[in-house]
Amino acid sequence: MTSAQDERERQVLDRIDRARRRRPRVREERITMSHGAGGKATRTLIEAVFLGAFGNPLLEPLEDAASLVLDQARVALTTDSYVVSPLFFPGGDIGDLAVNGTVNDLSVAGATPMYLTAAFILEEGFPVADLVRVTSSMRAAAATAGVQIVTGDTKVVQRGKADGCYINTAGVGLLAAPAPLGVALARPGDAIVVSGPIGDHGITIMLARGELGIEADVRSDTAPLNGLTACLLEAVPGVRAMRDATRGGVATILNEIATSADVGVLVREDSVPVRPAVRGACELLGIDPLYVACEGRMIAVVPGADAERAIAALRGHPLGADAAVIGHVTDDQPGLVQLKTSFGGTRIVDMLVGDPLPRIC
Amino acid sequence: MTSAQDERERQVLDRIDRARRRRPRVREERITMSHGAGGKATRTLIEAVFLGAFGNPLLEPLEDAASLVLDQARVALTTDSYVVSPLFFPGGDIGDLAVNGTVNDLSVAGATPMYLTAAFILEEGFPVADLVRVTSSMRAAAATAGVQIVTGDTKVVQRGKADGCYINTAGVGLLAAPAPLGVALARPGDAIVVSGPIGDHGITIMLARGELGIEADVRSDTAPLNGLTACLLEAVPGVRAMRDATRGGVATILNEIATSADVGVLVREDSVPVRPAVRGACELLGIDPLYVACEGRMIAVVPGADAERAIAALRGHPLGADAAVIGHVTDDQPGLVQLKTSFGGTRIVDMLVGDPLPRIC
Repeated sequence: MTSAQDERERQVLDRIDRARRRRPRVREERITMSHGAGGKATRTLIEAVFLGAFGNPLLEPLEDAASLVLDQARVALTTDSYVVSPLFFPGGDIGDLAVNGTVNDLSVAGATPMYLTAAFILEEGFPVADLVRVTSSMRAAAATAGVQIVTGDTKVVQRGKADGCYINTAGVGLLAAPAPLGVALARPGDAIVVSGPIGDHGITIMLARGELGIEADVRSDTAPLNGLTACLLEAVPGVRAMRDATRGGVATILNEIATSADVGVLVREDSVPVRPAVRGACELLGIDPLYVACEGRMIAVVPGADAERAIAALRGHPLGADAAVIGHVTDDQPGLVQLKTSFGGTRIVDMLVGDPLPRIC
Repeated sequence: MTSAQDERERQVLDRIDRARRRRPRVREERITMSHGAGGKATRTLIEAVFLGAFGNPLLEPLEDAASLVLDQARVALTTDSYVVSPLFFPGGDIGDLAVNGTVNDLSVAGATPMYLTAAFILEEGFPVADLVRVTSSMRAAAATAGVQIVTGDTKVVQRGKADGCYINTAGVGLLAAPAPLGVALARPGDAIVVSGPIGDHGITIMLARGELGIEADVRSDTAPLNGLTACLLEAVPGVRAMRDATRGGVATILNEIATSADVGVLVREDSVPVRPAVRGACELLGIDPLYVACEGRMIAVVPGADAERAIAALRGHPLGADAAVIGHVTDDQPGLVQLKTSFGGTRIVDMLVGDPLPRIC
């Protein structure tokens, strides 16, 4: 191992130690929707309850996938349950979401996704034709991503539970690069890059529920990111971290960078790509697109000197055509994310609080 | 690879081909509780829908875990969701069930369980104290089994869904033995062994619901089987197959042996160990203990000449103290399981039909 790698690993362990010392407590006596929204309450629940119970050095980085050594193989392992409502929406359904989401968690960990598990919790009365439709989407998504679904499970719960169908996928991938990736490795001067327009998935789900009376020409961005992450890693081997911007949106990832690495983050609002239809819907709903989930977009932290090369690499892939540098890591105000607004002001971007968009994945 | 291994693998592929040709169809238009009971309807759903969509040589053996090669490492991968109701019951709770169940699926695949994922679907309003209790059980079970929980996920669904808490665990283990295991490898003359008294878990759950007005001194047998399977594999390297007898019970596994290997199975009723309290409850409920789930028992198929050595190895472990040979594989009536009853008659033991014991794991 090189001394640069030693240094990186030591930094990761330092962050973990620091996080351990400031472990929070859950103040609520009962679970709320916010605990599942991917923002501040989810983070508190994870740190207080799950790290409290399971805490170990492999879990504690709290990245999208754990990095393991199995025999001689370096392997990434991840899991996600999908409870999106509705099950079918413009641009996708729970099936391709369940494949792409787990493929993406492996991809942003720097792994080549290989094998997936698929576990179904079905509601009594769920149409078999819908299950066939969902599994067909999963097959197609797995084929696109180049992964195989190799084992599974089926449970059935009584009518009224489970909203038709919940799916869990776990995934294993091969880690080729010896250098660890992680938001804790961000350092001042790094550039923060987004791979494309944000918020398409979350807004699509909100509108697909039909409760808001808003129509817009918007589709989920659900897609497998493994091709894109491979392009970026090849062009910029020094990538510090990649994250897919799902629940909690880009704002939550920016806060995880600031908190985990103990750095400041400064983002320019007008550099963040947002489609006009998504921006319009967000304005009508009073939601900041920075908090709206994507399912086929990633944030990458790269050394400042590599920013142009990173953007060129991303734009060379169909899923990264609109990639942009949205901000930088600073040594100012460690732990805080600041946004330079289009009007020239500056405001603090906190983690997602509450749950404006429940059940989006 | 030795020619004996070649022969085994060819046999497995033959079975898969045969299964593919007789793939059934789901007749129901909607999912029923039976589709989750682990018996005949579950099997049909898996073969018709899931194999139809995902079919690949790694999935198709339909064993408890998939066997993969990652880089040079031989790895087993499995997943299970847990929807047991009630969440807490004599002898355990959904937490240790979720760890032990997945540890056991890896163990009976011949793997050394290493790493688990943990994904929670929580109901809005679920007491945080209950979540702490469940995660504490998971920690204790993981420590007992010698595995680490290395990555996870949390989703929250609205009040009225998810019965408090559903848990999915996926697990990876290392496969040391080069010989494949599988019920398709059973052959006439093999002995069928059970590691202990059956039905404790299923009856415990039924009674814990308090709807039947029956009381009995019975506790779940939830336990990690990795120590026991390691003992058996060391003593009898020629083990053909191991299965943990969960949903669908011992009867379903016996049928999977008969169907997958295209052999007959003959079991002697009075050699099947059943605790008096479980037998009594089964009689009151009109249920055959052969269909009642265990969560810490396994069935093993071993060459007939190794039966005594297998029993001695199992009895040398605390979880196998009451291990017994319950029957044999025959070349009579391929595909059928027959039971010699205590009264001297013979009856056919079918796969579980319907769902007499919903939500037991």
